[in-house]
Amino acid sequence: MSERIHNFGAGPGVLPEAVLRQAQQDIWDIGGSGIGIMEHSHRGKLFDRVIAEAEALCREVGGVPATHKVLFLQGGASLQFSMAPMNLLPAGRTAEYIVTGVWAQKALKEAMLLGQTHVAYDGEGEQFRRIPSEADIHYAADPAYVHFTTNNTIYGTQFRTEPLVPAGVPLVADTSSDMYSRPIDVAKYGLIYAGAQKNLGPSGLVLVILREDLIERAPRNLPTMLQYRTHAKENSLFNTPNTFGIYVMGQVFRWIKETGGLAAMARRNEEKAGILYEVIDASGFYRGTCLPDSRSLMNVCFRAPSEELEAKFSAEATKAGFEGLKGHRSAGGMRASIYNACPRASVDALVAFMKEFERKNG
Amino acid sequence: MSERIHNFGAGPGVLPEAVLRQAQQDIWDIGGSGIGIMEHSHRGKLFDRVIAEAEALCREVGGVPATHKVLFLQGGASLQFSMAPMNLLPAGRTAEYIVTGVWAQKALKEAMLLGQTHVAYDGEGEQFRRIPSEADIHYAADPAYVHFTTNNTIYGTQFRTEPLVPAGVPLVADTSSDMYSRPIDVAKYGLIYAGAQKNLGPSGLVLVILREDLIERAPRNLPTMLQYRTHAKENSLFNTPNTFGIYVMGQVFRWIKETGGLAAMARRNEEKAGILYEVIDASGFYRGTCLPDSRSLMNVCFRAPSEELEAKFSAEATKAGFEGLKGHRSAGGMRASIYNACPRASVDALVAFMKEFERKNG
Repeated sequence: MSERIHNFGAGPGVLPEAVLRQAQQDIWDIGGSGIGIMEHSHRGKLFDRVIAEAEALCREVGGVPATHKVLFLQGGASLQFSMAPMNLLPAGRTAEYIVTGVWAQKALKEAMLLGQTHVAYDGEGEQFRRIPSEADIHYAADPAYVHFTTNNTIYGTQFRTEPLVPAGVPLVADTSSDMYSRPIDVAKYGLIYAGAQKNLGPSGLVLVILREDLIERAPRNLPTMLQYRTHAKENSLFNTPNTFGIYVMGQVFRWIKETGGLAAMARRNEEKAGILYEVIDASGFYRGTCLPDSRSLMNVCFRAPSEELEAKFSAEATKAGFEGLKGHRSAGGMRASIYNACPRASVDALVAFMKEFERKNG
Repeated sequence: MSERIHNFGAGPGVLPEAVLRQAQQDIWDIGGSGIGIMEHSHRGKLFDRVIAEAEALCREVGGVPATHKVLFLQGGASLQFSMAPMNLLPAGRTAEYIVTGVWAQKALKEAMLLGQTHVAYDGEGEQFRRIPSEADIHYAADPAYVHFTTNNTIYGTQFRTEPLVPAGVPLVADTSSDMYSRPIDVAKYGLIYAGAQKNLGPSGLVLVILREDLIERAPRNLPTMLQYRTHAKENSLFNTPNTFGIYVMGQVFRWIKETGGLAAMARRNEEKAGILYEVIDASGFYRGTCLPDSRSLMNVCFRAPSEELEAKFSAEATKAGFEGLKGHRSAGGMRASIYNACPRASVDALVAFMKEFERKNG
């Protein structure tokens, strides 16, 4: 068996090894059926169980209430940027966007193509270095919904809790990069969407959790595949879904449950991030890139004293068996993405490497 | 190692065992990178090679000319039902639909939501039992494109060759269920789309081959993810694609190449279908469901003398290790889907079972 290395990539990211081991078996023959998981009909009994189990575990792990539908769709968060306003923004109403990074900007851009929008907060002037406080967010009257991005992978910022919204206004969230990394009060949300490829599974699958009463907001003349009601009515089986992705996501939910659920996951994620931020803060060499109270537990962004040293860090890290530590091209520096499946041992190894690199170059 | 059974499912369908074996290795660690294929960044060097190789093999195997872009998208053929008219049907123009089954009807329905359409042929009155001849197809003047479905899984019919279209009019084809099962003259097409889950790979990925000069037909205010130009410009990497699906599809293309390419594939598919149709035609017990010259080489549909015997056939086939032989719920009877990866040995075993069932029940 070959050696796996430390994967700090921002996504698609590391998956739990137990899930990979199970998938190795199940793509050949799942459950003694004599057929691999990719080769089973999405209308067959075996896949019925796979998708039912994925949904049940999603609900159990996340405490998803009966008021909300769980959907497994395609097109990533990027298609949700359009589907959210197509379905939830009636003509003449306004959607509010809290803009904390490039992904929020992209969501806003798609909404602007489809309807009326208002920017409740825009952090670009501060290089997206922080999460807004309540006082920073200004809504226009009676919005159709409020959209925000829970975690900003590029800048390493993360909302500690949901922004306040006017009474009765649905909260819409792109949770792609921190979904199920900590407990979440789903009842607070009208719509949650999360590309799978950070914490939940392989790319090509997006988890959508939608409050049922919002389903019928959508005009009936939307393309069938772009209506939430289509997928809600058919339990994500209107057309052939990403069956393998749903299978892996179900396995990831099971792994979360078996390793203690979201509370335990949050504790481990706090520990992992805490270790890294402690090293950064204690160092005169490294520095964090965003305000301490806005820091992400998923993407730890930091700089070295010069771009030359950053390039050297990156090159030596790669040689030492660390993958994906280069910061996003728009932000520079370094970024350690430490999603759910990133083992504590990888963080410990990175910290040792960082200290040694500082000792040699500081 | 567990025993695999004979899989005649209509899709997701059987995949080549060599591809599954390679995937078992590569989801743990691909190419000695120390990271599994699902966990690699879509912006990294390893995945660059994976997608470049998938495209190169797609072009080589299918003879895709330089005039055409190859795209790997999400949402299945069902989303292409909408994307095709969104991008290729300007206001005031008419799209022609050749309706040979339920999937063609669905494609037409989505186009009708978006623009002006005309039905050039409708086979519903004849229960979709045949492929239209040239004389059956009637176009209105100057269509924006002509859409057809190359193979009709439910009824077991298949076009032998492309329908004639007025000079200069782009041909648009849903080739989901027979893509790369035989040589194809891609130059004849403006747009080809094929959900992967029959002949090309796992579900959750759709192969799109688009003539470059058509890309700019689309209005610029379409949602970004629904414009072909977005994906063409970014080589399918505008957002995170289904990386695992693209990897598997590349492996399937390689398998097609290594087993002799599309000409050899077509020969094997003709042989497999020929064996089955011969048994059906020679029998006074089984009967085919569609006109002989319209028969599909991918989905062989047949009936037994009564629904009781069909139910018995289905139950005994399952016990004997054959999966997926029940006909579509809207068509009844039996259906053997014998896609590229269905081994000749499975067909031989099925024929033996059919003969024995006829002997006992005829």
